Amino acid sequence: MEALGEFDLIGKYFTRPVRHAALGIGDDCALLQPAPGMQLAISSDMLVEGRHFLSTVSPQRLGHKALAVNLSDLSACGARPVAFSLALAMPRAEESFLEGFAQGLFALADEHGCELVGGDTTQGPLNICITVFGELPPGQALLRSGARAGDDLYVSGQVGDARLALECFRGSVALSGEAFEQVRVAMELPQPRVALGQALRSVASSAIDVSDGLLGDLAHILKRSGVGAAVEVDAVPRSAVLASQPTALQRECTLAGGDDYELLFTAPPALADAVQAAARLSGVTATRIGRINDSRLLTLVDAQGRAVPHTFGSFDHFKS
Amino acid sequence: MEALGEFDLIGKYFTRPVRHAALGIGDDCALLQPAPGMQLAISSDMLVEGRHFLSTVSPQRLGHKALAVNLSDLSACGARPVAFSLALAMPRAEESFLEGFAQGLFALADEHGCELVGGDTTQGPLNICITVFGELPPGQALLRSGARAGDDLYVSGQVGDARLALECFRGSVALSGEAFEQVRVAMELPQPRVALGQALRSVASSAIDVSDGLLGDLAHILKRSGVGAAVEVDAVPRSAVLASQPTALQRECTLAGGDDYELLFTAPPALADAVQAAARLSGVTATRIGRINDSRLLTLVDAQGRAVPHTFGSFDHFKS
Repeated sequence: MEALGEFDLIGKYFTRPVRHAALGIGDDCALLQPAPGMQLAISSDMLVEGRHFLSTVSPQRLGHKALAVNLSDLSACGARPVAFSLALAMPRAEESFLEGFAQGLFALADEHGCELVGGDTTQGPLNICITVFGELPPGQALLRSGARAGDDLYVSGQVGDARLALECFRGSVALSGEAFEQVRVAMELPQPRVALGQALRSVASSAIDVSDGLLGDLAHILKRSGVGAAVEVDAVPRSAVLASQPTALQRECTLAGGDDYELLFTAPPALADAVQAAARLSGVTATRIGRINDSRLLTLVDAQGRAVPHTFGSFDHFKS
Repeated sequence: MEALGEFDLIGKYFTRPVRHAALGIGDDCALLQPAPGMQLAISSDMLVEGRHFLSTVSPQRLGHKALAVNLSDLSACGARPVAFSLALAMPRAEESFLEGFAQGLFALADEHGCELVGGDTTQGPLNICITVFGELPPGQALLRSGARAGDDLYVSGQVGDARLALECFRGSVALSGEAFEQVRVAMELPQPRVALGQALRSVASSAIDVSDGLLGDLAHILKRSGVGAAVEVDAVPRSAVLASQPTALQRECTLAGGDDYELLFTAPPALADAVQAAARLSGVTATRIGRINDSRLLTLVDAQGRAVPHTFGSFDHFKS
């Protein structure tokens, strides 16, 4: 009896004819036929209320974000999105939630030609787990391990607004209505850099998406690549709203904010023009924010070249 | 800061060198190179405490079961397991839990040559979401839609013990210690019929795994295939422990029990010997329990050929 609702809901909101997959929702497995010779990139992200989203987010935006964070992982590898599966636990099957969630989810999925091929729904504390599949030619994946001393360090778009929005929700920062809406959109509707990731395939030497904070994620690149970096903290791109905040808060948000879903990547100086061409082609900016070195240390300097002390929690990743 | 534990735990319990995948845990995506020409079968299952397992289950057995229910979906399609990703939400990172969970998980994974290639861990109410990948030649997947009037209906192994164990935990049935341990093993350590599923590829006309109860899952085959079935309720194989219970309880457990993870499948009578050969080869029994017909109805008869009334909840699936 209890499973009846499950099947009804799947049918009503999540069953759409598949266009590319050999078999979609409704059997024990989905069937995918990878393009000949292509590698499959796979990533899973699990979203939990209070940790990855707030109860105040609209169902549409939550549907968007749940897929966006997964597409962001594909982007960081340079893969082209193909399909995804969705597992969803909900306390109750609320139609208003499901309708909005499906709208936000499918709008982003359609934008990137990424189709839902399978999944699971169950009763339980709200939990959204998406596994996404992308394709890319063998050997062309952007990895965390490819940064070399002398490479430039770049970040796409702007970072820090999602963290500023979180501080507003926490009550530690007050913004005007319009400014708050702007940073709230950054937090709730992140735009995965799908086109940029693919355009960087033969350009970037390493890449990661910024989900845990720029410095924490940079530390993953440094550790995997066995290199160090000097980051010009005042060069990190930020919105006008964030730029009007106190310096300490700006640095906290841009360097240790998290939830940005921009691409952080490295490329040899000789490919600086190619980086900008890839960015233009993708409709997003790419800003040089530092340089990779062979120190195995992560150092920060301000616009005047003065050392900035490491006071951000996400540095701890790098110690291990 | 909060993500530090995440990376430590991944490293300690879930990072193993991949043998087949092009890239495993530690980058933004895992990379898989499908064998040339093969289709990829994909299935996701999300397990929630109180619904898919009880708080009394050991971490080892929970690790086993979380993967087993996913391998069971691959089996029902006839796919060969290749890889899986694991997303795990836990209230706290308890080493004793993680160590046992990883042991049970990897023991079953190794048995079936299915390697962990990626995943996610986060703080939250206990939730386990596994997505599993299998390979099979195009066009050879066992589907729910292939049953034809005249086909025999089979089930592998025995069904009903998992439900009997649940009734013991609920306090509605009392068993001796030894009998209870036996049915508890059926509930907590289901054995996915991986070999049988592959052996049935060119033999079975349709298949599904029994997760929601035999009749409820049969209803999916009937609906998808546009056929009916007559099930001989006394022919459904059950353990000696279950066979010693009252008839009504036996029928409830075997027909509407759920959590069995046996294969329910159909095959033309001309292939009856091939069915038994596939079962022998796989080290599991296959019992004929009825026949498919063109009535579009699901009817039950007892050993004396008398109609048995439909009183099982899982029939509701078939109404829709």
